[in-house]
Amino acid sequence: MSILVVGSVALDTVETPFGRAERVLGGSANYFAAAASLFGGVQVVGVVGDDYPMEQLDFLRERSVDYSGVAQVPGESFFWEGAYSFDLNNRETLETRLGVFADFEPVIPEAFRQTPFVFLGNIDPVLQLQVLDQVEDPAMVACDTMNYWIEGRRDELVEVLGRVDVALMNDAEARQLSGEHNLLRAARWIQGLGVRYVVLKKGEHGAILYGPDWLFFAPGYPLEEVFDPTGAGDAFAGGFLGALVTESAVTRPALRRAVMYGSAAGSFAVEAFSVDRFRDLTVLEVVQRVEEFREMTTFEHELERV
Amino acid sequence: MSILVVGSVALDTVETPFGRAERVLGGSANYFAAAASLFGGVQVVGVVGDDYPMEQLDFLRERSVDYSGVAQVPGESFFWEGAYSFDLNNRETLETRLGVFADFEPVIPEAFRQTPFVFLGNIDPVLQLQVLDQVEDPAMVACDTMNYWIEGRRDELVEVLGRVDVALMNDAEARQLSGEHNLLRAARWIQGLGVRYVVLKKGEHGAILYGPDWLFFAPGYPLEEVFDPTGAGDAFAGGFLGALVTESAVTRPALRRAVMYGSAAGSFAVEAFSVDRFRDLTVLEVVQRVEEFREMTTFEHELERV
Repeated sequence: MSILVVGSVALDTVETPFGRAERVLGGSANYFAAAASLFGGVQVVGVVGDDYPMEQLDFLRERSVDYSGVAQVPGESFFWEGAYSFDLNNRETLETRLGVFADFEPVIPEAFRQTPFVFLGNIDPVLQLQVLDQVEDPAMVACDTMNYWIEGRRDELVEVLGRVDVALMNDAEARQLSGEHNLLRAARWIQGLGVRYVVLKKGEHGAILYGPDWLFFAPGYPLEEVFDPTGAGDAFAGGFLGALVTESAVTRPALRRAVMYGSAAGSFAVEAFSVDRFRDLTVLEVVQRVEEFREMTTFEHELERV
Repeated sequence: MSILVVGSVALDTVETPFGRAERVLGGSANYFAAAASLFGGVQVVGVVGDDYPMEQLDFLRERSVDYSGVAQVPGESFFWEGAYSFDLNNRETLETRLGVFADFEPVIPEAFRQTPFVFLGNIDPVLQLQVLDQVEDPAMVACDTMNYWIEGRRDELVEVLGRVDVALMNDAEARQLSGEHNLLRAARWIQGLGVRYVVLKKGEHGAILYGPDWLFFAPGYPLEEVFDPTGAGDAFAGGFLGALVTESAVTRPALRRAVMYGSAAGSFAVEAFSVDRFRDLTVLEVVQRVEEFREMTTFEHELERV
């Protein structure tokens, strides 16, 4: 089964305390695809300029990522440059040039419209709605968002959240969107907009999946070294949805497993610049990390003893 | 089996967005005892002034907290006044008057010296060392500390950490002490001082228990309302050690369970001012919260499926 992702296909220049990478593969759709393609097919819809190094996407194409929905048009590709603080907890955006992405209007190819799983990357909610109008009865739609759209496109974002099944965002975004500092209240508020499942990503502290009347904690993988945090959230989404499509049904146990796969995928993403960690990563390594999570969260509890 | 705790027995005036409590029971030893006494006996060593409302400790005495090691001397009791920000994430200390606590020199009563479990509250490491010199071959000693001692009594604190079995502190304190921003590296650095187990408390994000070559995640209990965060860390320690003493041995499964009890105890502490939530709390309610934790962290993972 495949996943359709609509998002940015970009070039990033990133500086971390460990080094600098110039004009490397970036963008939410690339990070998502790199992680999700460990589990199955991914169809990308986006736009790049004529400067984009399309041949660098070959390793993802070989893993059944279909880039035929990415239009290459005259102009410059979406470019982002950022620098991380010594503790990697803060980043400064040095430059953002939208380039051809500024006029992006997603057109879902006919062949992609019946894809059962859809991921709306953190693009303008107006564009997310355009995608929702083009896809035909998907089994599940997930979306991400970001502070910029929470401020500037609030009404449209609220509409999106009434039409999707899963919303992923980070804890600060959930607080900003809901006006609630308490995360549980923030998640419940977002669910009140109509979205059934909310996944709040908390960086090193892991993630929480909020179901209708239950929730589930996924820890962050304990890494001694975080090399480059860029794209961790998109890789999380890719691991989450990628694992979910391998399930026979979207059940509560399946969603719980999927969040663990998301956390594992995010933890691999930060081990190298760009999508580099996914070049030789195998699904078995991800499975092993999820098993480690189980080891780190399981405890025996004999009620009768106390 | 009993636990000996040496720490502050204080009066707090606390203001939160939900209200104000004046001169109520506070101090690390009281919070610890309130939580630990749900599981068994607690012996407190400390000092108070002649203004201390000893009769308010009756509900803890009835739960087998032994305050005979708390000297009441002429002068003022340790007093702390603080106010929390609207989101409860920051607090401002408005006043600290050490009173008779300034001259506190712990004397462990003869009857308490062979108590098998010892908790050193976040007092001056010089005093923590004095306690270690007086107790006789305890089965397990745990300690807490705080930023003030990390700055001002570093050498003595390092000596303490070489002589205890478990160190509990919050994530910011671990970073400050170790000079490592990464929590895993910080914990390993602290273990390098000689302490076998490190428990890092992360507030709403739960806690991590670091063993010699393994670690374990305890989530924070998802509360919709945090009423007063004061004492959560001490209640955590009380729940942790309280549950641990009910075990037949300090094993890896026992420690994992204990951290869950710590997290549960901390979550109850913040539901009311002072130690008030522990007045009518039953051990069964704590057990139920630990069961909820299991529900929120358990997932099935069939390796062969992927």
